[in-house]
Amino acid sequence: MEQERPTSEKPGHPPAQASLHEVRTAENSAAFLLPKLQSMKESNPHLKLLDVGAGSGTISVSFSKLIPDGHVIGVDVNANILPRAQAVAEEAGVQNIEFQQGSIYSLPFPDETFDLTFCHQVLIHIGNPWDALREMLRVTKRGGIVAAREGDYETECVWPESSELLKFHKLMAGLMSAGGGTPTAGRQLVSWALKAGVERSQVTLSFSTTSYQTPSERTTLSEGLCDQLRGGARLREKAVKFGLGTEIDFEEMIQAWKEWAKSDDASLAMLHGEILVQK
Amino acid sequence: MEQERPTSEKPGHPPAQASLHEVRTAENSAAFLLPKLQSMKESNPHLKLLDVGAGSGTISVSFSKLIPDGHVIGVDVNANILPRAQAVAEEAGVQNIEFQQGSIYSLPFPDETFDLTFCHQVLIHIGNPWDALREMLRVTKRGGIVAAREGDYETECVWPESSELLKFHKLMAGLMSAGGGTPTAGRQLVSWALKAGVERSQVTLSFSTTSYQTPSERTTLSEGLCDQLRGGARLREKAVKFGLGTEIDFEEMIQAWKEWAKSDDASLAMLHGEILVQK
Repeated sequence: MEQERPTSEKPGHPPAQASLHEVRTAENSAAFLLPKLQSMKESNPHLKLLDVGAGSGTISVSFSKLIPDGHVIGVDVNANILPRAQAVAEEAGVQNIEFQQGSIYSLPFPDETFDLTFCHQVLIHIGNPWDALREMLRVTKRGGIVAAREGDYETECVWPESSELLKFHKLMAGLMSAGGGTPTAGRQLVSWALKAGVERSQVTLSFSTTSYQTPSERTTLSEGLCDQLRGGARLREKAVKFGLGTEIDFEEMIQAWKEWAKSDDASLAMLHGEILVQK
Repeated sequence: MEQERPTSEKPGHPPAQASLHEVRTAENSAAFLLPKLQSMKESNPHLKLLDVGAGSGTISVSFSKLIPDGHVIGVDVNANILPRAQAVAEEAGVQNIEFQQGSIYSLPFPDETFDLTFCHQVLIHIGNPWDALREMLRVTKRGGIVAAREGDYETECVWPESSELLKFHKLMAGLMSAGGGTPTAGRQLVSWALKAGVERSQVTLSFSTTSYQTPSERTTLSEGLCDQLRGGARLREKAVKFGLGTEIDFEEMIQAWKEWAKSDDASLAMLHGEILVQK
């Protein structure tokens, strides 16, 4: 079953939480796709691109800027996030974009509709990622590209270390698994693509990193995570339900993230897997 | 105490093992430094660059090509590797390079000799990396750069998973720790630089990845690791000495790596930390 993304992508989400997702752009979250996008655009400026699990739409909007003569559709399973995505598009002044509700398991489009079908941090949260990839392939034109970038949460490394931050890591991995997701998604993408029916020769695999380490990055991350620990995105409620944390744990983790953000030598980094599938 | 690198960088090392290190170039192992190198070269084509722990010299040689009017010195604590490094330089036809024996803790150069002082996968293996960074800073000119790239071995992710490959990971981390090294080096670089006496504002931190996933990359990695498991680089001898593995374990791990290399969906990836320190 498809899960809601355990994120803050809802109306009324506190700003600190939203800012954690809204820093995402095509440039920082889909760099592996951009050379291919560029070469495809040169032969066809009117590319149709689908961003699945678009959330607040910041990646979708940056795609729409990269293909001004093309068209972008962002879908998200959570209809409540769509007004925020539309607002992001309006603020950016882009016209060649629209957002609609849709599940990655059953995309509301005919076969072979898009030149490029993309998702970011979606497969990591769902139970049958190979079915999702098969559906993404269905709506992609022959000769088109399906692209996915997913974190490998087990590679997350945080410095300085503390027992509270380690506890937080385990809490998040536990929530992901309890929700049907796969904390080691990044390393499994090729395996999932093969299970979706493609040949290995159709798949290009790469890896990249996401990190937080400058004072402003540390503040953004710390505030976003503390916000979740205070109850945003129902994290606290779910954690207690699954027996993954106590009220005391949450307060200690909040303190630990606040301390972490103040450390000159602090960083958090994680590896992401990336696949380009040539249909 | 400084440790020999647990590598194959010795005369008589089997080719498979050597090939694991000799694929390293400035482009794939020092990409984070190259924009800075380029801008420094524009104002001074006669840059002096020191590569500490140069091993087989493949990175040093690619640096020497990038600064044809500059000069590169590669040092390694292990004098036995120097002939191989010189052979690599001769094969590449570069003249502006030399290799000599030297310890990262006591570099055989006066203060402020080099414009750029670099090391790759050295600090991860030694007991007092902050002292090594302080020594690298000593031989670097004011206005020059000290750069280091070190793996974070605890972020290594291997797919498909198996108990034998997990055992191998623990064996390698155990050997690194037993030898005085730090498997989580990548995430600690800023902390070590601060301990070496620099200000946080002098340090630029980044992260990148190393991965093996194409058929030829998988074969190179698998053969190199199997070679070590058969006794190369004294891995087997050291592992038994530290109680980190039995003879049966080694044979099982060799089989597991051979199987891994044959898997279409196999990959191994790891995160690296990178620092540029402005002196």
